[in-house]
Amino acid sequence: MPEKIEQLKVRINEVMDIYNAIALLSWDQQVNMPAGGEEDRGYTTSTLERLAHQKITDPEMEASIDAAAKETSRLDPDSDEARLVKIARREYVKKARVPARWVVEFAQATTNAQSAWIEARATSNFNHFRPSLEKIVDLKREYASFFAPYDHIYDPLLDDFEPGMKTADVQAIFNQVRPEQVKLLKAISQQPQIDDSFLHIPYDEKAEWDFGVDVITRFGYDWNRGRQDKSVHPFTQGFGTGDVRITTRFDPERAVSLLFSTMHESGHAMYDQGFDKRLARTPLSNGASMAIHESQSRMWENLVGRSLSFWKFFYPKIQARFPQQLGNVDLNTFYRAINKVEPSFLRVEADEATYNMHIMLRLEIEIALMEGSLEVKDLPEAWNARMQEYLGITPPNDAQGVLQDVHWSWGLVGYFPTYALGNLVSAQLWEAILKDIPDINDQFERGEFHNLLSWLGQKVHIHGAKFEPQELIQKITGSKIDPQPYLRYLENKYGGIYHLK
Amino acid sequence: MPEKIEQLKVRINEVMDIYNAIALLSWDQQVNMPAGGEEDRGYTTSTLERLAHQKITDPEMEASIDAAAKETSRLDPDSDEARLVKIARREYVKKARVPARWVVEFAQATTNAQSAWIEARATSNFNHFRPSLEKIVDLKREYASFFAPYDHIYDPLLDDFEPGMKTADVQAIFNQVRPEQVKLLKAISQQPQIDDSFLHIPYDEKAEWDFGVDVITRFGYDWNRGRQDKSVHPFTQGFGTGDVRITTRFDPERAVSLLFSTMHESGHAMYDQGFDKRLARTPLSNGASMAIHESQSRMWENLVGRSLSFWKFFYPKIQARFPQQLGNVDLNTFYRAINKVEPSFLRVEADEATYNMHIMLRLEIEIALMEGSLEVKDLPEAWNARMQEYLGITPPNDAQGVLQDVHWSWGLVGYFPTYALGNLVSAQLWEAILKDIPDINDQFERGEFHNLLSWLGQKVHIHGAKFEPQELIQKITGSKIDPQPYLRYLENKYGGIYHLK
Repeated sequence: MPEKIEQLKVRINEVMDIYNAIALLSWDQQVNMPAGGEEDRGYTTSTLERLAHQKITDPEMEASIDAAAKETSRLDPDSDEARLVKIARREYVKKARVPARWVVEFAQATTNAQSAWIEARATSNFNHFRPSLEKIVDLKREYASFFAPYDHIYDPLLDDFEPGMKTADVQAIFNQVRPEQVKLLKAISQQPQIDDSFLHIPYDEKAEWDFGVDVITRFGYDWNRGRQDKSVHPFTQGFGTGDVRITTRFDPERAVSLLFSTMHESGHAMYDQGFDKRLARTPLSNGASMAIHESQSRMWENLVGRSLSFWKFFYPKIQARFPQQLGNVDLNTFYRAINKVEPSFLRVEADEATYNMHIMLRLEIEIALMEGSLEVKDLPEAWNARMQEYLGITPPNDAQGVLQDVHWSWGLVGYFPTYALGNLVSAQLWEAILKDIPDINDQFERGEFHNLLSWLGQKVHIHGAKFEPQELIQKITGSKIDPQPYLRYLENKYGGIYHLK
Repeated sequence: MPEKIEQLKVRINEVMDIYNAIALLSWDQQVNMPAGGEEDRGYTTSTLERLAHQKITDPEMEASIDAAAKETSRLDPDSDEARLVKIARREYVKKARVPARWVVEFAQATTNAQSAWIEARATSNFNHFRPSLEKIVDLKREYASFFAPYDHIYDPLLDDFEPGMKTADVQAIFNQVRPEQVKLLKAISQQPQIDDSFLHIPYDEKAEWDFGVDVITRFGYDWNRGRQDKSVHPFTQGFGTGDVRITTRFDPERAVSLLFSTMHESGHAMYDQGFDKRLARTPLSNGASMAIHESQSRMWENLVGRSLSFWKFFYPKIQARFPQQLGNVDLNTFYRAINKVEPSFLRVEADEATYNMHIMLRLEIEIALMEGSLEVKDLPEAWNARMQEYLGITPPNDAQGVLQDVHWSWGLVGYFPTYALGNLVSAQLWEAILKDIPDINDQFERGEFHNLLSWLGQKVHIHGAKFEPQELIQKITGSKIDPQPYLRYLENKYGGIYHLK
């Protein structure tokens, strides 16, 4: 390998190793750490973050990228090396543009905002969170200014999660989705509602857990390179492709949510387990974007895990584990129950047909806040008005409204749209999959998932972050992110379930 | 705080934070990591170790220590600041004396030695390990040379684990111990042997675990600042005083060993939980030495956990958990069984009366190897000869002889004596405790251990590593490490159990 590229890789490997350690500190904090460990864990994590940041923003890093770029200009632009230089420039030079003063101020602001948000949500008092959020909005607007000129002030924020995507792209996509989903929800609301009461009776946690393990083992999640634990919020954390862990949680009120959470996280995890080994210890050993990542988790959770063919195989098995709860429930009743559509206040509880509405609402609000056309003080009102418009319901309080999500207190602005984009991408990939594996539903009915995982592995996983999301989807499906497949999927699925038309 | 001391502390805090992260990487590797994580974990750990080493051996570190030393020369030499400067000089300047070339060579040699040792032990073939051990011995001799002049070539090795202690000190101590323990063992061997067969029948793992948890909760192990997990080899790992974790293991052949292992590790852990918070994120937030650390674990395991007064309280409780196994066994029979003395091949299985003999054998061998008076090739013979001399038994093969311990393959030379010193110190402290808390056995019989923990906390734990081991023991007991209390303890305890004279 040419010398300057090799030198850059050594530098990058070191940074990635530090981030790997930070990832373990974070995983452990959420899964294992006793309460007493908080203070020292904070010191340890911030020291490592400072070290990584120093190395990334060191002028020698940029010089090393420039030197390597001269060498990669003679290589195939799609080679690992050329892509590594490209992504290193994008990620590291972006970080170097942010002044240290801002980083410190932002860290302080989000620390304060997190405790303010917890208190505000607990008492459903938005005013308690308002000053913190105002500070974060100001800082995020300033953050965008470091990357001027831009087409839209929201672009640099979105770019942190969806490299290369513009605000206008997302708006154009969502503008196609919104009226169609509103129409679908209206049609569903006019049909008799589904009875899912048998999902809301006590289920045994251990039996749920074991069933979930059986399912994702069949999916192809590799337990030699992973494990499952419990945490307050389910998440996936990888430490290289050889160790990608998932967590889940048990909610006695919504017992099967453990199962869908396990399937969801396994989708994230199988993506991370599938990156090409040659990309190890570089930023290419990563998902292409948050949306592409979410497309994988939503696919395994919903397109697979809430499909009739999946349950044709698994329903007798779950019935055998829960004879009291499901013994007298037939497959079709169960299938309809896990796909019940019902406008609800909380995004995390939303079904497939309403989920995107929650996201579009957030995107519009984030854009308005960044543009300055909406002030933080007017946020609850704006939130509730859109909830009424999109879902026909008004939150009884701010805890179930504008205060429900932790993201803004963490300073995450530009993240929410990736959830909806992930839904869209999952269906777009699905149409491509159906062309290549026409009998995939028959395979599911036999409990076979390896052809699906192998397809995803070759088309999506192996590339890691080599390609930007739009580029990757174009490569696979022949067009950029397109909402039509998802709309077709919803219409087809719920048309059947709710006997529409 | 004076400026230069403050600057040194910032530097030191950063190094300690990195070591804290390394400690978590190691804990996780032993407790949680799936097999597939090994390769990346290796990269992550060695990158952090390299970063810490760079910061320690940076000439600016030594300059910062010198600058701070000027300020501390005006302070009480026992102040935290003066002690910090002293220990930083000892630890960091020692590391700076070791050339980077040696560090790399040693890392390579121990990596090779570990796989060679595993293979050698599995096949009981010493020759398979011999070349690796020869390399390690050469490197350790060279390591000592970086600290010349010394009184004895073993001194710099010992000093890594027992700061300030000399080889001659340890030899003088062991020379007092050896003949007395040989005499005691001879006397015991002439008495009828104890029947402990009821300890070697199946016990339920979960019930053992729960009983161990009850015991150390009563000891005062703080679960808000710790947790217990399973690992192949039990160990304690702290990440600051707020998070000190222990592990244990279950061996179906030796069920109660889980309990004693839990008590042992809790002794280590309560030490680490007890360091003064003011010492946090410095090398003073550490045990005074390996021997002092071991004195704490051995005290809770043996002087407390194998005492009659302890079992007067706990025996009915363990009987209630294991009615089938212990229902017909009376307290005195149980007490004698858990204190059975029997020469055995493996150090880790040794009872209190034979344990030190295993250590003295290793110390003599290590010293001879370092002096050059014993060659690696002659090691098995030297080992077996001493086993026969001290314990009257000859290992049937090298796996149960010279190959039994992992330590040399890790490059640990100078570590073994700390195990025996820990035993001696535990009894020496015990005599001081009996003076201050004369009714301590009555307290144990009532299940009360807080006065013991509080005594240890104030006399030993709170100081962390501020004092060197000999200095600390002198402060507490009025004399340096003295083997007589341990010999008195053994004679008294086994005199009763084996009805000697």
